[in-house]
Amino acid sequence: MNRDQKVKVPLAFKRYRSAINTELRSVLADRKSPLYEMMRYHLGWADEQGNPVRGSPGKALRPTLCLLACEAVGGSWYKALPAAAGMELMHNFSLIHDDIQDDDRERRHRPTVWSIWGKSQAINAGDALATIAGLSLLGLAQRGIPAGRQLLTHKLMYEACLTTIEGQYLDISYESRFDILVSDYLEMIERKTAALIARSLEVGALLGSDDEDVIRGLSRFGWNLGLAFQVRDDILGIWGDERKTGKPWGSDIRHKKKSLPIAYALETAKGKARRELVDIYQEEVIDDEGVRVVLGILEAIQAGVYAQSLANEYYSAALKQLRGLSLLPWPRSQLRDMARFVVERES
Amino acid sequence: MNRDQKVKVPLAFKRYRSAINTELRSVLADRKSPLYEMMRYHLGWADEQGNPVRGSPGKALRPTLCLLACEAVGGSWYKALPAAAGMELMHNFSLIHDDIQDDDRERRHRPTVWSIWGKSQAINAGDALATIAGLSLLGLAQRGIPAGRQLLTHKLMYEACLTTIEGQYLDISYESRFDILVSDYLEMIERKTAALIARSLEVGALLGSDDEDVIRGLSRFGWNLGLAFQVRDDILGIWGDERKTGKPWGSDIRHKKKSLPIAYALETAKGKARRELVDIYQEEVIDDEGVRVVLGILEAIQAGVYAQSLANEYYSAALKQLRGLSLLPWPRSQLRDMARFVVERES
Repeated sequence: MNRDQKVKVPLAFKRYRSAINTELRSVLADRKSPLYEMMRYHLGWADEQGNPVRGSPGKALRPTLCLLACEAVGGSWYKALPAAAGMELMHNFSLIHDDIQDDDRERRHRPTVWSIWGKSQAINAGDALATIAGLSLLGLAQRGIPAGRQLLTHKLMYEACLTTIEGQYLDISYESRFDILVSDYLEMIERKTAALIARSLEVGALLGSDDEDVIRGLSRFGWNLGLAFQVRDDILGIWGDERKTGKPWGSDIRHKKKSLPIAYALETAKGKARRELVDIYQEEVIDDEGVRVVLGILEAIQAGVYAQSLANEYYSAALKQLRGLSLLPWPRSQLRDMARFVVERES
Repeated sequence: MNRDQKVKVPLAFKRYRSAINTELRSVLADRKSPLYEMMRYHLGWADEQGNPVRGSPGKALRPTLCLLACEAVGGSWYKALPAAAGMELMHNFSLIHDDIQDDDRERRHRPTVWSIWGKSQAINAGDALATIAGLSLLGLAQRGIPAGRQLLTHKLMYEACLTTIEGQYLDISYESRFDILVSDYLEMIERKTAALIARSLEVGALLGSDDEDVIRGLSRFGWNLGLAFQVRDDILGIWGDERKTGKPWGSDIRHKKKSLPIAYALETAKGKARRELVDIYQEEVIDDEGVRVVLGILEAIQAGVYAQSLANEYYSAALKQLRGLSLLPWPRSQLRDMARFVVERES
């Protein structure tokens, strides 16, 4: 991939953006406790003092995929908005707790919630956001979704949430281990990342169609897209451009993350290189020199090339899933663009 | 109240206990990740290594009230079990996170989850338990509860959960404040404790009846019972018998909790006594001598008498709510016994 080439951002992001924002804001409207100030801050709508800001919120990948899936199967995407918002809120709950668990002081170029309000209150902010994600689904009743489908949406979202937490459990349990194989890593990201993305598409589809095959097909598409997304994330976490990713140089190495390139190195590197990698990861703090040595080890085994080829494999598998499905033309091409964006993005 | 007199434990606790346990275990059955070992440990079913133990689990107050409310309105309590289990799991989620936030190393005579598995994984255990509480409600479908009622149950449980978190936010925000009035304290416990208890009864009632008046009446009964419960808890947290409560002598004072007796003292005590109280609460650690001084200040203003009289007021208000309602005789007398137990209990 040519890094100078501008990555094409799919139109779908823009198409739904304002409706997603309106839905998210309506879920949080009229909630007065300072608890909600933390959420508004995290979501990029307010500063630390609660003053509104023109934020640079996240990509809204999950709700966009949810609405696109609904539209692709011939549904009215407007009806799926409460579920799309729920998925975004659920994702953001996990980010707030993630930042506490990883001791991360910065996200998207801003201080994290816990670094401003302390860990105890940030735990509350995350807990409340997860709860509001569930409450958000109740809006489906006003969009004419039958009660049975609403209940199924609850089930799918909560199962995905539970799987995400299982993934987070694994991720943290890997911190103290050096016997992590690529297969362990994949088991972790299937849970931590792919499940919620796959379910976002699945829920969007089932709110627009009764066709079990197409619902299952879009879920599998989402599964592969989710894996591709995380692998690309890992690449950016080590080799990404700080100005674009918002993460400092060598960030994932400094955080001693067992991301894909590291899992690959632990499995592949031999002798001195492997020992050196383990030694550095066992140090209290990894300094610039340590980052450089780890980068050298990864370079020697071509861990970056390996990771991108794996991302591309998941991308191809995602596209293959799409092929057999009966979908409307524009959303189909957008789903393809989304998959491509995921493996090519620079931030 | 005569402390030597044995407190009467309502029969309702025993009546539903085994069905509640079976339901709770079925919700967690077949879940293999070590994440669930933490939950089973917290719930008193397993030791640290995951071996089954004959536990001394909590009172199961919320599910018992839920099932009793269902039976009282003429419903079949068996049908409400998934909701009763959900309420208990939701309550336990809040305890796991509470212990992290309060830095409490012990609960019910055992080390807390975080003190064994660390705070990061304990956050995950709490998150997962809250999610499972939601999934537990899906069992209502198999008990023949109509979809609309199921959705209403989701709504009520998640609203109660959100209110509980708002209460926890307030509780933590009071830690650094010395201008707390009794009214602030009451606002906090209405959210942190009363809401989930009230909703447990409300949900039980609506799963057994369509009569809006009786549903609302039992919710109000639960509201007052919940307030009485928390006030009594505060009394036990300061003057309780360690062998019965499982909390060391003067526990809430050592933890610098702004419980009712302290809020009353901050509002009522004058001059030197108030200054002394504030000084002690601002110390890094409150030692035995500090606890004795605080106890003396509380004694001088009869804070314990005040607190018990407030608990008794809520008890009376709860009974008054019951009077106008059309309920079956046995559950009605049990609801009365529950309210009495709550204000008289020693643990």
